[in-house]
Amino acid sequence: MPQQRSEETRERLLSAAERLFASQGYDATGVNHICAAARISKGAFYHHFPTKLALFQALLENWLGQLDAQLESALTAGMNPRSALLAMAAGMQPVFDAAGSRTRIILEFWIQSGRQPDLWQTAVAPYHRYLERFAALFATTDSSSQTTSPPDAQAQARILLALALGFLLQSFFDPTGAAWSELSVQSIQIMMDGLERKTS
Amino acid sequence: MPQQRSEETRERLLSAAERLFASQGYDATGVNHICAAARISKGAFYHHFPTKLALFQALLENWLGQLDAQLESALTAGMNPRSALLAMAAGMQPVFDAAGSRTRIILEFWIQSGRQPDLWQTAVAPYHRYLERFAALFATTDSSSQTTSPPDAQAQARILLALALGFLLQSFFDPTGAAWSELSVQSIQIMMDGLERKTS
Repeated sequence: MPQQRSEETRERLLSAAERLFASQGYDATGVNHICAAARISKGAFYHHFPTKLALFQALLENWLGQLDAQLESALTAGMNPRSALLAMAAGMQPVFDAAGSRTRIILEFWIQSGRQPDLWQTAVAPYHRYLERFAALFATTDSSSQTTSPPDAQAQARILLALALGFLLQSFFDPTGAAWSELSVQSIQIMMDGLERKTS
Repeated sequence: MPQQRSEETRERLLSAAERLFASQGYDATGVNHICAAARISKGAFYHHFPTKLALFQALLENWLGQLDAQLESALTAGMNPRSALLAMAAGMQPVFDAAGSRTRIILEFWIQSGRQPDLWQTAVAPYHRYLERFAALFATTDSSSQTTSPPDAQAQARILLALALGFLLQSFFDPTGAAWSELSVQSIQIMMDGLERKTS
């Protein structure tokens, strides 16, 4: 089954790269190291990924894909935005558990990208994607009853992203300091309560 | 006036180091580079700072000192915690304006510290200091009227820190994307409204 073998090769490359990026850093890890650690030939590497950057992007998409799937399934199940966001946050514990090494890899990538303009768009693309996604979600909530002016949908999305990014960073500083997923759920409830109070 | 000269030397070293850390990174910048850029002798450097790490800590304390002073003066003026936090957030625009290069320096330091256990305590000390500071602030708010159980003071402090860290990161991704200081103020208002709703 060549299709299955190929998939297996890809997975082995991704998991070897994740281990090496976490222990040595993105910059210090070469395609050679990844191939050696995964016991895969360089030819096979380049069959799957044109560059190390492409592999990194695939890794990032894997991680974020889990979050996206949770949000989509909650929305597809007909949940309102508040419930869908709470369901997403409640399912984030695995993300927080892996956050130590992954957060370090992502932070390192952001920093290097800041010095290489050609990487920067890749580095910030997921941020802009989530910003649009959440803004669209908030825009669907009924605002006809507004009496005061709450922040607009994009500002609400930025507040939500601040909470998400802020908890990820804190789970990196202090992995066992709090039940991060539970705290994310609580903070979204508080934010939504505060927003409703503004609009009621 | 040797006292004044000495202060001037210290400031020149700090500002040269900040420039170099931002452009080349913390790791790639040596004491030699800092001395050359500041046109200060190595002897004078070590008179002020025993190590490059000590200089970095002084830089960090300078940046955070501005925030601390704002919070302290608001509290000393007899403001309640809500108003003091809002005043602090309102004064954060200069922090956001400088965030681009400073955030990069701090992120890089965190990442390297994660690989060097002896640096890690230094790297996370400001986080734990703010956590205690804000938890103490929230603990002073009256909770006698609680009907449901809101998050405790430490959890509230972590939510506040999530917002602060999350907005700092976003201002790094997207410096001109929003009025970050204004958005911080709005988000704290929303959070406090949400918490009051929980306790009323």
